[in-house]
Formats: sequence, C-alpha cells, structure tokens
Amino acid sequence: MKGLFITIEGPDGAGKSSLVRRLQKAIQDETDRPLVMTREPGGSDIAEEIREILLNPVHTKMDARTEALLLAAGRRQHVVEKIRPALSRGDIVLCDRFVDSSIAYQGQARGIGVEEVKAINAFAIEGLKPDLTIYLDVEAEVGLSRIRDKNSNRTQDRLELEAITFHEEVRKGYAQLISQEPERFNIIDASQAEEKVFEDTWAVIKERLNDTY
Amino acid sequence: MKGLFITIEGPDGAGKSSLVRRLQKAIQDETDRPLVMTREPGGSDIAEEIREILLNPVHTKMDARTEALLLAAGRRQHVVEKIRPALSRGDIVLCDRFVDSSIAYQGQARGIGVEEVKAINAFAIEGLKPDLTIYLDVEAEVGLSRIRDKNSNRTQDRLELEAITFHEEVRKGYAQLISQEPERFNIIDASQAEEKVFEDTWAVIKERLNDTY
Repeated sequence: MKGLFITIEGPDGAGKSSLVRRLQKAIQDETDRPLVMTREPGGSDIAEEIREILLNPVHTKMDARTEALLLAAGRRQHVVEKIRPALSRGDIVLCDRFVDSSIAYQGQARGIGVEEVKAINAFAIEGLKPDLTIYLDVEAEVGLSRIRDKNSNRTQDRLELEAITFHEEVRKGYAQLISQEPERFNIIDASQAEEKVFEDTWAVIKERLNDTY
Repeated sequence: MKGLFITIEGPDGAGKSSLVRRLQKAIQDETDRPLVMTREPGGSDIAEEIREILLNPVHTKMDARTEALLLAAGRRQHVVEKIRPALSRGDIVLCDRFVDSSIAYQGQARGIGVEEVKAINAFAIEGLKPDLTIYLDVEAEVGLSRIRDKNSNRTQDRLELEAITFHEEVRKGYAQLISQEPERFNIIDASQAEEKVFEDTWAVIKERLNDTY
C-alpha cells in the first residue's frame, strides 16, 4: 500500500497544535493504518538538536540564511530517518509544518527570496512532496491575538516575537505557493471556531483516506 | 585598506593545525595589521553549536546532505558575524577550512555531487571568495598514518573514522577545484618535514602580504 503524506501549514496562531491533536484521534478512530505524527522543526534526534539551536532565544544574531539552512538540514534528517521509511511501509504521516513553512517564513517574510529557499529545500528533500496540504488561513491580527492570549502559560520563542507585518508577509508567501500548486492545498478558514476548523479539515482528510483504499 | 582572506585546505593529517599556529606567529611578527584566526566548522557562537552536532560521534545516522547543510549553515553565520566584518575593517583573516572542504568532503567524497554542494554554499556565502588558498597536498596513506600516530592524545571524531578510499576521494575533489581555479590555490607539498611545509607556505603568504600594501 502507498503511504499518505499530509502536512498542516499556516501562520502562527492559526490553531495548528490543537487541530493536530484532534486529527490524530479522528484518524486512529477511522482506520487501522499506522499513523506517524510528527512536526518541524524537529522529528528525529539530530533534527531536535537543530531545533534547539533554532528556537533558543539567546540567538538574536542568527542570520535569516543560517536559519533557512538549519531548517533544511533538520528537514533532511527528518525525511531520511522518519518520513520516507514510514511512507515506504504504507503508513499515514501527519506532519505539522514542512517545506512550505520555510518558503513562506524565510523565503518571503524574511526576504531571502522564494526561489532561493526552494532550491536549498530541493537539495534537502530530493523530490518528496506532500500528497495533501491543509492550509489554515487566518489574518495576521487574529493569529497574533491568539498567540498573545496563550502567552501566560507558554514560553515565547524567538520566531513568535515577530511583528504583525511579518505575519502578513508569511501569509503572502503561502498565497503564492497556493497559486502555484492549487491542487495540493486545501484552504481552511481558521478564523472560525475550533470545532468548525476541525470539522472542515477532517472532512478533507477523511475523503482522502477513503480514496486511498 | 582592503582585507585579506586566506584559507588553509587539505585532507585530514596534512598538518593544518600546527602550520596554522606557526603562521599566526609569523604574520604577527611581519605586520601590524590586525589578524583574525578562525576555523570551520565553527567560528561564532551559533556556528560552534552547529559544530558540536556535526562532530558528535553519537550521530552515526547523520545523512551526508544533512551534514552539508549544517556545514553551510555554520559557514553562513561565520561569514556574517566574523569574516565579513573583519575584512571590512581591513584585517587579515586566516581560516582553517572553508567552502572548498565541503565540496571535497561532502560533494566529492560522500558522493552528493560537486555542483549541488557548490549551490548550497553559494546561498550561504553570497559571493565571498578567499583571496588566497593554501592547499596542503598529502597522499591518503601519509595523512592517515599521521592521524593514527596522534590518536593516543586526541579523541577521534566521526569524520576522522573514515577509510583510506574516502581520503583519496577528498583529494580528488580538491584536485578538481584546483583545476577550476588555479590562480586562487597555492599547492604545498605537505609530505615534507613540518619546518619545510611552514617555510614554503610562509613564502607564499609573505609575498601576498607585501603585495597588498
């Protein structure tokens, strides 16, 4: 059986984390196929060590290109150690962020350039593409206010200390990717209530799960 | 005044470390220009953290492309934080290993491909080239026997545990680079006695130092 590679994308504050937890339960209730839950940056021992360097708030001097290369390095290891083996076994892989995040964040929002960031990621993933990408669409203001509300019980990391302009650029980066590959992306209105965001997403994934049988 | 960027390259066991220490003293005795001594992987706080991931012998699962991307990430940070600012001030920068090492080791010897590794490094360095590269040429057998002799008082790292075939490939990678940019490289016969290797290298660097005044 062919594996199924699903990625969840969107700006910070779109509600990815809680959605991913609900999707895990829904997929496991729906099918006996093995499910691998993972997320970037990270996903393997080496990639988690790279993640620590990336998210350490001490690293205020980190250059945008260093960040992009570290993300690509962690991604490479994640693909080789975890994602590819799982897909080869026929598993479902649900991954919180993948290449699209680097293109939107580093390529567009940090201004390196979409094509340049695509190129170093092509080196990292050697042709691996998600079968389906859920894009949680939310305006910068909504996303940022959600992050602020959560901040009392969560440590801010460096990436979350960015301003609203940055989030708008991220959204612009995603919009560009969606226009280039409309068939891969499923856009979900993430300004809706959590329950509704889940229902809309689950409908898309459920259909795809049944397709692949 | 324009800075002067000198890199030292060669396979393991070519005698780079001790040569670099002697060159530091010789340059400081010769000129009052500020000298920045540095080495890769590493050279800045972030790059040193990346170095630790790279050289940790526990990381036996590290993929060659992950390694190449981590090296490029560390290099980027090293260039931005240390090398470029020094050259802008007009300093002399003496760097133990730079892009050529990645091309010879990861591109050629680990088989990723010379052009692919060049491309990710071009992303990292954005056009920065050494003014002068000293290449310490030594046959694999000689280099490896020197490493073995030193092992009693030095911890072996993962990169040094490679076989003789690997070292021959590294040398082949360097030979290719030298044929493409013969004017940048100065080839030193590193199978000679340490004193003679230093004298030959110092003659080349001294001439270049006087040129730039």
